Amino acid sequence: MSDHSTHDIRITGGRVVSAFTGEEFAADVLLRGDTISGVLPPDAPAEAHDRVDATGLLIAPGFVDAHMHVESSFLTPHTFASLTLARGTTTVLADPHEIVNVAGAEAMRWMIEAGRDTAQTQLWGVPSCVPALAGLEHAGASLDADDIAEMLGWPDVIALGEVMDYRAVVSGDPRMADVIGAAADHGVILDGHCPNLSGADLSAYMATGVDSDHTKNRTEVVLEKARMGMLMMLQEKCLLPDVVAALLALPQLPPLCLVTDDLAADHIVNTGHLDHIGRVAVRAGLPPAAALRAMTWTPAQRLRLHDRGVVAPGKRADLVLLRGGLGDFDPALVFAGGRIVGRDGVAVDAETGGEGTERGDGRAGTRRAETGVRAETGVREEGGALAGTVRVERPDEDAFRWRVDLPDGTHRFRAMRVNSRDTYTEPVEAELPVSGGEVQWEGRVTLVRVRNRYGRAGAVFAPLVGRELSPGAVATTYAHDSHNLLTVGTFRAAMAAATAAVVDDGGGVAVVHGERVAARMPLPVGGVMSRGVPDDVADRARAVRTALTEWGWDHLNPFMSVSTLTLAVSPSLKITDLSLIDVARREPVAGVL
Amino acid sequence: MSDHSTHDIRITGGRVVSAFTGEEFAADVLLRGDTISGVLPPDAPAEAHDRVDATGLLIAPGFVDAHMHVESSFLTPHTFASLTLARGTTTVLADPHEIVNVAGAEAMRWMIEAGRDTAQTQLWGVPSCVPALAGLEHAGASLDADDIAEMLGWPDVIALGEVMDYRAVVSGDPRMADVIGAAADHGVILDGHCPNLSGADLSAYMATGVDSDHTKNRTEVVLEKARMGMLMMLQEKCLLPDVVAALLALPQLPPLCLVTDDLAADHIVNTGHLDHIGRVAVRAGLPPAAALRAMTWTPAQRLRLHDRGVVAPGKRADLVLLRGGLGDFDPALVFAGGRIVGRDGVAVDAETGGEGTERGDGRAGTRRAETGVRAETGVREEGGALAGTVRVERPDEDAFRWRVDLPDGTHRFRAMRVNSRDTYTEPVEAELPVSGGEVQWEGRVTLVRVRNRYGRAGAVFAPLVGRELSPGAVATTYAHDSHNLLTVGTFRAAMAAATAAVVDDGGGVAVVHGERVAARMPLPVGGVMSRGVPDDVADRARAVRTALTEWGWDHLNPFMSVSTLTLAVSPSLKITDLSLIDVARREPVAGVL
Repeated sequence: MSDHSTHDIRITGGRVVSAFTGEEFAADVLLRGDTISGVLPPDAPAEAHDRVDATGLLIAPGFVDAHMHVESSFLTPHTFASLTLARGTTTVLADPHEIVNVAGAEAMRWMIEAGRDTAQTQLWGVPSCVPALAGLEHAGASLDADDIAEMLGWPDVIALGEVMDYRAVVSGDPRMADVIGAAADHGVILDGHCPNLSGADLSAYMATGVDSDHTKNRTEVVLEKARMGMLMMLQEKCLLPDVVAALLALPQLPPLCLVTDDLAADHIVNTGHLDHIGRVAVRAGLPPAAALRAMTWTPAQRLRLHDRGVVAPGKRADLVLLRGGLGDFDPALVFAGGRIVGRDGVAVDAETGGEGTERGDGRAGTRRAETGVRAETGVREEGGALAGTVRVERPDEDAFRWRVDLPDGTHRFRAMRVNSRDTYTEPVEAELPVSGGEVQWEGRVTLVRVRNRYGRAGAVFAPLVGRELSPGAVATTYAHDSHNLLTVGTFRAAMAAATAAVVDDGGGVAVVHGERVAARMPLPVGGVMSRGVPDDVADRARAVRTALTEWGWDHLNPFMSVSTLTLAVSPSLKITDLSLIDVARREPVAGVL
Repeated sequence: MSDHSTHDIRITGGRVVSAFTGEEFAADVLLRGDTISGVLPPDAPAEAHDRVDATGLLIAPGFVDAHMHVESSFLTPHTFASLTLARGTTTVLADPHEIVNVAGAEAMRWMIEAGRDTAQTQLWGVPSCVPALAGLEHAGASLDADDIAEMLGWPDVIALGEVMDYRAVVSGDPRMADVIGAAADHGVILDGHCPNLSGADLSAYMATGVDSDHTKNRTEVVLEKARMGMLMMLQEKCLLPDVVAALLALPQLPPLCLVTDDLAADHIVNTGHLDHIGRVAVRAGLPPAAALRAMTWTPAQRLRLHDRGVVAPGKRADLVLLRGGLGDFDPALVFAGGRIVGRDGVAVDAETGGEGTERGDGRAGTRRAETGVRAETGVREEGGALAGTVRVERPDEDAFRWRVDLPDGTHRFRAMRVNSRDTYTEPVEAELPVSGGEVQWEGRVTLVRVRNRYGRAGAVFAPLVGRELSPGAVATTYAHDSHNLLTVGTFRAAMAAATAAVVDDGGGVAVVHGERVAARMPLPVGGVMSRGVPDDVADRARAVRTALTEWGWDHLNPFMSVSTLTLAVSPSLKITDLSLIDVARREPVAGVL
């Protein structure tokens, strides 16, 4: 029996936090290999090769993130792991719907492989809606039920990714029925996405077997969904005091998961990962013990991982040692599979067994981890199948001439009005002169252009209003969900400069002030992920936000506001590589009125 | 999509109980096939072929019993299902350790097959300790790690049955290590049994991966185990007010399962099954909503059944419609897999789709269900491989002559003292005369005789004290855990009569008053299960208890007290077909001192 040989590590002096009872109790935790080999009274004898002093620390289970997207961090799976392991996230279920829209099954395979030798348990859901709106946009791939069924059989694939086209599900769309049916046949987890869906529509959606939701809902809909047996996953924007108070007022607290969904590298570096969501939950009123359970035991059950979620002998040695009170969720030391992978929020190179240096300039730890990656995994580092996915010419100014088949004179065009609160747009009209078959837009409106980047011809243009922008432009290949090449600008030369920078980088984001590149984030891995280390990516992401704000793009999350102009499942007038889209009617609409 | 065609059944006018939030809310529940196809506001339109009126009823999920033994009911799996489905138990995880001790893998296969076409979901654990004490008793079978590994791969086998030899586990016994290792390799559930195990021993036990316990513990050990991440399963004897109060005083309630463990047919008929345990829990102070979750969602999660445990669209249509308040757990109507299987506590023959008649004489429903069984499944009804397992001659009085190789005179013999509280015995001494190579025990002590019934020779005798018995005897083949032929009596003719009756019946229990058979329960299926319908079996079990009590066998559960004289893992002096056993030392001891 395991107890009768020497343990590898004895963690002494700490207090274990029980995800079951919420109690904190003095205990030494013993590890052998990747397993917790004992939880003992502090004075109990037991031999161990090494000791780790946990005096003053709480010993909690590793955090389990039941709903997230790696690409939202702009990091590759391996680099994402090094950053977030240090914050305590030892297990994730990732839905790679951005990159699979770019490169299909090949991208899915690449993602799974890319994270496989990290100490983070990365499990995967197959994106259910590729493209998001079939027939109304071209992504780099298109998955039917057979494609999805094949991927559902791959190792480490345990879920159908969020079924976001919930209107199609409720209306009985046969493609979605086939996709969900294939997943149900595989017995995998069916993840949902259905903001404010309620009543008979919610019932119809759940009847397919989809049984979770992580979107923002009105408080009464949160309660309705929980009551209906839908597992509620709460991300930052859902963790509002009135929502938490309403949940706590129920006869009993329903099972809950805290999730990150979409967190960019700079957000993670600045504020944290699931640890941050835990703090947000506690600030919103959730008792720390309930928050812990929602970050450990409940998501582990959801992911059908029966070997984790609680600090117990026999369970996997994924541990987060926390400073301060439980509700601070402040990771001092992180173990994954029995090895130290993070110290003081900085990655420790688990592959060499070394421990992180003090942070110093704030990035020594992650740099060191990254060095290990580069030496061992050149193919992954190069992006493999995901290099060279931006298959368009470097554009000149002429590419931003908006040519139309209209006579000279003033014409009315459909335009998108953006706001500063959310990612919705409002359909409005713009009157613009046409001369010599070309819309004379410069100096009058901001122009949006979407160019297919997967080898198809053509580009779609539309005016945008609602911003007070100085001269400049932004271009990006990170444009939800098909990730074509999106450019927004006030004059042609700026748009050409921004777009050329992105093409030169093999994908990414560039913000141009005047004609000067003010911020640039290369994302050469599929046009959506960086090859850089987390701190550099975070710096660049921050610089992009700052440059967008300085340009006049007034929004809480300016890059999200730009990159969702193409998100044709989000209200109400959006633009794809094929057309302007009336989202409510799920139809293409003409640009000229 | 499922919502767009007609439903089979609409259950109207009831209130759904949410196992998630504990709320009760007015809703109509729609069923299609074996699935809940909708949970709708009462006024929502939806077509259904049939309607079921649930006015005044609560609609709860079917009950899930995460730890029990079918044989304890004396019923075969099919008959057990018909009885307990009507009480709301729609899913069980059964550990057939009684019958597998009788007939090994063949018995396991028989049990699985015997219940397969019922509407109850019967899942199985492979008994981990067959025989209970290797080398100290002969059961009808012996399972090593390879045998167990093979059975773990069978359909519907999801667990290693309770690892009851916890002392062997803690001490590092290699056989138990191999067995648990085989189960861990299969990734199945590892069920525990470790009364009052605590501290370092508990840690060592859990380090093997065993992570539940259903035994009775001191209150502080219940709390310790819960805190340590052991899933606590509470059966009737564990549901004491002080235990419940201590659990409710924790920072948060740990996950809990309510379980039945061992309930005999008469107990089920008289008081109920898991519904009864729910009432016991509520009487002990558990809030009804917490009791419901512990009978539905939490055990479903434990059994890794992701399709049930909550009334929700898309989940399996296992429903219990309850009269009165939730805490009454009073099943009026039970659905399993979308079909009515019980009404007012009486089985409805799901195979014909008919509905039960009114109870009348109290057993019409179960009789009718049984008829369906007999017509369809003759092989099962006959017991198949489990017929003819009592391979001994019909004894005469001479069989109860206690012959010894001792000179004439008075000798001191080791004797078992029984009590009226529990199943423990105390080692004492008895002085008895020996004459002509035969102990002259009649008129002086009660005699216990254990005879191997699996084709081996020999019998073991011991005196028993602590009862004021009138002339008579009891014999049974239901004698934990090896189920050899046990006879206890005050004179030889009575012992012979009781034993002959049991042999004639092909196994069972017989109680003899004087030389007359006062009660008789044939258990021809493996010597531990009846071929009868539940009400008849209950009547016979009740008659056995009454006859034992009238004989003078003073105990709360007299048959349990008899049948555990052979349970050599329970303190402190027990008897097997090989020897008297010193349980604490796990050693055979001589009968003569």
